[in-house]
Amino acid sequence: MTEPHSSPKPFDHLFVSQLNELFRWRRDVRRFQTRPIDESLLTELIYSCLNAPSVGNSQPWRFVVVKDQRARHAVCKNFEKSNDLAALANADDSKEHYKKLKLAGLKEAPVHLAVYCDKNPVEGKGLGRQSMPETLEYSVVLAIGQLWYSALAHGIGLGWVSILDPDEINATLDTPDNWRLIAYLCMGYPEEQHSDPELVRENWQGPTDYDTKLFYR
Amino acid sequence: MTEPHSSPKPFDHLFVSQLNELFRWRRDVRRFQTRPIDESLLTELIYSCLNAPSVGNSQPWRFVVVKDQRARHAVCKNFEKSNDLAALANADDSKEHYKKLKLAGLKEAPVHLAVYCDKNPVEGKGLGRQSMPETLEYSVVLAIGQLWYSALAHGIGLGWVSILDPDEINATLDTPDNWRLIAYLCMGYPEEQHSDPELVRENWQGPTDYDTKLFYR
Repeated sequence: MTEPHSSPKPFDHLFVSQLNELFRWRRDVRRFQTRPIDESLLTELIYSCLNAPSVGNSQPWRFVVVKDQRARHAVCKNFEKSNDLAALANADDSKEHYKKLKLAGLKEAPVHLAVYCDKNPVEGKGLGRQSMPETLEYSVVLAIGQLWYSALAHGIGLGWVSILDPDEINATLDTPDNWRLIAYLCMGYPEEQHSDPELVRENWQGPTDYDTKLFYR
Repeated sequence: MTEPHSSPKPFDHLFVSQLNELFRWRRDVRRFQTRPIDESLLTELIYSCLNAPSVGNSQPWRFVVVKDQRARHAVCKNFEKSNDLAALANADDSKEHYKKLKLAGLKEAPVHLAVYCDKNPVEGKGLGRQSMPETLEYSVVLAIGQLWYSALAHGIGLGWVSILDPDEINATLDTPDNWRLIAYLCMGYPEEQHSDPELVRENWQGPTDYDTKLFYR
């Protein structure tokens, strides 16, 4: 209560329009250059999302930079196996199309980043998550979003790989039992950039009708 | 594949520093002015997050603007009941402190926005969520993050109320069975703005040691 009354400098029209451009170009990247990300920039990017929103200010995010080549290789194998299984789940007329899609850039991406949720963080003393405990995991997702925007503002792309067996990832990375895998991310300079989703460009789906998303009560 | 090779205009240092300012001032707001949000601005803000990341481009977010006064009143009661229950769960030496915290601005906030996840969206044909189905809910969380930043860029604050019984909210809003409540949000012009978390200002917790969040494998 000692902070003087204060407020940020108002954000002007130029900033708002640049922010919308950032959102528009913020795509899931699956084609990376092999050019490395400077180590200090990577740390800066991860630090830039540590003030993300979290339930009861619990800050349950734990970031694991995966450098070990055997671990990275195991994650690539994990993806291939999970992706073969996922292909089978498609309708017959979609199976071949599915197999042609490039759904991850794990091999090329210079940075692998596993993001975990600590299920019992000390920060915030459990406040705010009695009735909707899943907000703890959601907090980690909010930090990942913030990282995504920060990275793109520095010209770095991010791809979220969800086609993985999470238990196997935990074993590969030997993570604590009370951590839950939220996301496995690839990061690097993109080979190409787009303002539309790859799945639309590849005719997996049509463009979206935004009118179907908003309701009133 | 017909889009010409393209890329966004690089984001300059000024934008990066403004983006970091946006993140720094992006706080959970619980004290709102009663001044309304212009209807067209609210729609613009919601639309500005519809290109958020989503698993398999499933876009499962469903936004419900809650205008009905009886529904809003029921949500306030829901919070009060849930908050009384949550207070009991605190250690004895924290109970009184907990009760003094202001954890929601539901009564004053001009806008109530419930955000749902459609558990069976048609978009994307189920791609990407066989092995980690929770990424569907996570997609909605990413959209909420994007809304939060957009809102603040327009001077509008957002508060995420997690101390609620979600089943009761669904009944109050009469939502479809295949929708899951992800978040109940308050929006409005903030009475005051801060760059540090309220729970730290109120001595509920200390400042965070960022070094405890980053690991290497």
